[in-house]
Amino acid sequence: MFRTNNCGELRFTNVGKNITLAGWVQRTRKMGGMTFVDIRDRYGITQLVFNQDVNAGLFEMANTLGREYVIQVTGEVAERSNKNANMETGDIEILVSEMNILNESKTPPFTIEDNTDGGDDIRMKYRYLDLRRTSVRQNLELRHRMAFETRRYLDQLNFMEVETPVLIGSTPEGARDFVVPSRMNPGEFYALPQSPQLFKQLLMVSGFDRYFQIVKCFRDEDLRADRQPEFTQIDCEMSFVDQEDVLQIFEGMTKHLFKFVKNISFEDTFPRMTWHDAMKYYGSDKPDIRFEMKLVELKEEVSGHNFVVFDSVPYVGGICATGCSIYTRKQLDELTDFVKRPQIGAKGMVYIRCEADGTYKSSVDKFYSSDDLKVIAAKFNAQPGDLILMLSGDKRKTQKALCELRLEMGARMGLRDKDVFAPLWVIDFPLFEYDEELQRYFAMHHPFTSPKLEDVPLLDTNPGEVRANAYDMVVNGVELGGGSIRIHNSELQNRMFKLLGFTEEKAQAQFGFLMSAFQYGAPPHGGLAFGLDRFVSLFAGLDSIRDCIAFPKNNSGRDVMIDAPSVIDQTQLDELNLVIDIKEKKA
Amino acid sequence: MFRTNNCGELRFTNVGKNITLAGWVQRTRKMGGMTFVDIRDRYGITQLVFNQDVNAGLFEMANTLGREYVIQVTGEVAERSNKNANMETGDIEILVSEMNILNESKTPPFTIEDNTDGGDDIRMKYRYLDLRRTSVRQNLELRHRMAFETRRYLDQLNFMEVETPVLIGSTPEGARDFVVPSRMNPGEFYALPQSPQLFKQLLMVSGFDRYFQIVKCFRDEDLRADRQPEFTQIDCEMSFVDQEDVLQIFEGMTKHLFKFVKNISFEDTFPRMTWHDAMKYYGSDKPDIRFEMKLVELKEEVSGHNFVVFDSVPYVGGICATGCSIYTRKQLDELTDFVKRPQIGAKGMVYIRCEADGTYKSSVDKFYSSDDLKVIAAKFNAQPGDLILMLSGDKRKTQKALCELRLEMGARMGLRDKDVFAPLWVIDFPLFEYDEELQRYFAMHHPFTSPKLEDVPLLDTNPGEVRANAYDMVVNGVELGGGSIRIHNSELQNRMFKLLGFTEEKAQAQFGFLMSAFQYGAPPHGGLAFGLDRFVSLFAGLDSIRDCIAFPKNNSGRDVMIDAPSVIDQTQLDELNLVIDIKEKKA
Repeated sequence: MFRTNNCGELRFTNVGKNITLAGWVQRTRKMGGMTFVDIRDRYGITQLVFNQDVNAGLFEMANTLGREYVIQVTGEVAERSNKNANMETGDIEILVSEMNILNESKTPPFTIEDNTDGGDDIRMKYRYLDLRRTSVRQNLELRHRMAFETRRYLDQLNFMEVETPVLIGSTPEGARDFVVPSRMNPGEFYALPQSPQLFKQLLMVSGFDRYFQIVKCFRDEDLRADRQPEFTQIDCEMSFVDQEDVLQIFEGMTKHLFKFVKNISFEDTFPRMTWHDAMKYYGSDKPDIRFEMKLVELKEEVSGHNFVVFDSVPYVGGICATGCSIYTRKQLDELTDFVKRPQIGAKGMVYIRCEADGTYKSSVDKFYSSDDLKVIAAKFNAQPGDLILMLSGDKRKTQKALCELRLEMGARMGLRDKDVFAPLWVIDFPLFEYDEELQRYFAMHHPFTSPKLEDVPLLDTNPGEVRANAYDMVVNGVELGGGSIRIHNSELQNRMFKLLGFTEEKAQAQFGFLMSAFQYGAPPHGGLAFGLDRFVSLFAGLDSIRDCIAFPKNNSGRDVMIDAPSVIDQTQLDELNLVIDIKEKKA
Repeated sequence: MFRTNNCGELRFTNVGKNITLAGWVQRTRKMGGMTFVDIRDRYGITQLVFNQDVNAGLFEMANTLGREYVIQVTGEVAERSNKNANMETGDIEILVSEMNILNESKTPPFTIEDNTDGGDDIRMKYRYLDLRRTSVRQNLELRHRMAFETRRYLDQLNFMEVETPVLIGSTPEGARDFVVPSRMNPGEFYALPQSPQLFKQLLMVSGFDRYFQIVKCFRDEDLRADRQPEFTQIDCEMSFVDQEDVLQIFEGMTKHLFKFVKNISFEDTFPRMTWHDAMKYYGSDKPDIRFEMKLVELKEEVSGHNFVVFDSVPYVGGICATGCSIYTRKQLDELTDFVKRPQIGAKGMVYIRCEADGTYKSSVDKFYSSDDLKVIAAKFNAQPGDLILMLSGDKRKTQKALCELRLEMGARMGLRDKDVFAPLWVIDFPLFEYDEELQRYFAMHHPFTSPKLEDVPLLDTNPGEVRANAYDMVVNGVELGGGSIRIHNSELQNRMFKLLGFTEEKAQAQFGFLMSAFQYGAPPHGGLAFGLDRFVSLFAGLDSIRDCIAFPKNNSGRDVMIDAPSVIDQTQLDELNLVIDIKEKKA
């Protein structure tokens, strides 16, 4: 062992002890005949002292140390005269009597500090140096802790972690698969799993009863900030359960993580909201309920006042921002610009200021009398000093825009504190989504999702109204996970496939082995999957999942550090019976 | 919840309780007006009773149940008159008052019993049914337990589990990579990792200090019984350690697993053997030391007796099988046939029977007098009643053949008990292997393995003699894991590359990012990796790793259950800019 202690553990009680440390040079300061060196490792930073009068040779050596040199030092723990209350080791320093330079370092291209001077690109290229920064390393420590506590909780409840294969078959439905050419089976390909969905259902057929896996999944999508081509799921499935059982077990898991990782206790049951209410009151299936400011529908109240904008649309709705009547023209213009951005797509915004004196001032005074505005304000239960913001248009799109506006206002009003956590179950999702363009239904979750028993009769008459035994866990507006009770009955499954427009051949080709398995005694089962990356990001207070992944890829799916993907040898291509034929050079 | 209890937990103390179980029909027996049904789940089997006199309807229903039907029953726990001591629930039975058939089942293609009537192929095709068999499920329960206990041990010692990427770059050296075409980077490919070696070393450069990961690795090899295209490693790395530290930590891990999974305590330190001794005394770098029967070199003793077979070869060696002088001619012929098999490749076998009366009888009496044979026997310390078996030829090949013969004799003599575990560290591996054909040195482990400091001067003069800081853990002749202290010094690494015949360009192309990383303060580090599949197989007493993998592939790399790999859509190929061009149809 190169050390007796790590760089984060020595305290006042160790004074007088002779110790050896090893680590990286964080900083050196020469002050006359004394040189101070901060030595860093994963556990902390300790101050080293080199005194010219005591050992001139060592002192000279210390003055040659560059940032990020790797050194090993032996010396005595001494009390610091100038204590540093901001450092855990701030009461002591090491009077160095021996030093060994284990490795030199070129000057790193950015500083190894929480507030580094390195930009995104350079930090990704030198990710191994970026990972030296305490804030980045702590994200990964958090990730380890969360994965470990997840396993501990599930193991206690008799869940078994089972590894499902990474080299599986491709299913053309859904997002794009990454594929892997098979050398031994010329012309054929494996696919990397988008999730272990089929395998975990097979494990239920096998009687495994309680399965989980923390597992890499893959999706060949065009990437956004919060998407990575490979991501990690906490994948779970149980047999002989109904929805209530699943919700309780995994609410328990979430509480366990909050308690053992964040030291936050949730005594109460998590609130539950139907998908219908989530859309109606928050314009989103993943509401951020850290704050109220619910959406209010106003079509009835605003109609018939010759305001064509409102009269000509199916939906008018708004939110009420407490205490914001003092917003200036400029602030209101900013909000208008915000909702008119193409990603949000509103045509304009109407406001009503509920003035402190009880009067109303709106951008539509021409059409609405003070009494009219009072009626509208009453719908919000608005008080003097509040600000009402209204949007109109197509129902879903407007609700979505109001959702964005609500989140923006929540942020501006400081209602979205990253240290406050508001978990929520969203339940009763519709089983189907109707695609207007393709004029057919799609499964909102996936084709194995079970309808609610009481809604089964609607399958033939009104599929759009059928509710699923499906549920999402949402925290602070982030969908952490979701799942469903599955169909375990072949007949019902076949009806679903028919409704979803699968021919028998297509269903057979894609899910044949699952359908076959279901004929040999499939138990009732259900489960869910959490996105570990998002879960960690939420706990870490990060905006992007990238920062909680050790070696993430950029938006082109490249690892710029190792420069992958890359071209491969012709012999490799030949062995795989492949020829590259680039039809159109992409940018 | 569909049940109040599972099928393995009811006992005599529960008699009188009203309970609900759910599970699969293992067996039904109709005996007059009583029908007995065994219901099975992951936890066990419970006997259900249906009495025609009590409830004729239920009785009729019970008689319609087929094997593997999924049922839910409610009833009272009753004491069994005819107790079954072989079943954990054998003291009780359930007097069923309600039954619900949750799902029917076609008759499974093989019996769901430990001794099933299903052959390998059919069990693989219906793997989801094979997994219902208790023995198969127990292997996977064992796997879960081992992975969990591995994590618990390492977490306690401050190891962090870090997920390294699955989509990485291809390195043409070594075994064949599986590759993944990149749609977003036309003409370029990711590779799937054969191990996270480079990434774990980068994490050490990043100061992560103690890393581990239980991780899938991939190798596109022609498969043998104990190889799978995807396999799982317990991958570990530490900084600021020397070989002794690594051995102690992972000897501790192995002991922890034996203790908490197998309830076997190893008080003593595991024995250590140099690679040189392993080859000399066992003819293998992974000796099975459950029994002695060491190889003895005899060239000196047997030379000069006009026996050309021995005189003309560089190496003669043998083993002594205690108490086997009674072996018949037929048994000796069998052994001769065994060593002459092409996989072993010996030309013939010489035996000496040390008869009970103190005389010797050998297959080479023509060349060796009784006194000559006595001298040979003395080298083995052979006693009356022992049997000496000798092979000759090229040194390495003959040692290897003797190793196989020793293992065969160990098996015949019952010395290889699967419930006895003999762990061993093999250390001091040579740094290089010399390839006679290519006339150059190869790294025995990998090019980052550190030579022993005291052997560094030999690098230039006699590379073949340089020992590495490399080590393997061997249990019962199975290599469970291995690793090394790595080179952390760029200069030494460059010397290694040169010795291994890497041009600077090639080294840069393949390991450039690691070489660059090493210039920014790489700490001394080392580690190892265990094969989880082998570890589980060893604990389970299995001959093949396949049986401890939930969904294994066959020898052609196929998953016959889901029929993967398979052809993919033309649109997928187009998007990937690939054309299939099968040069030669393989069988």
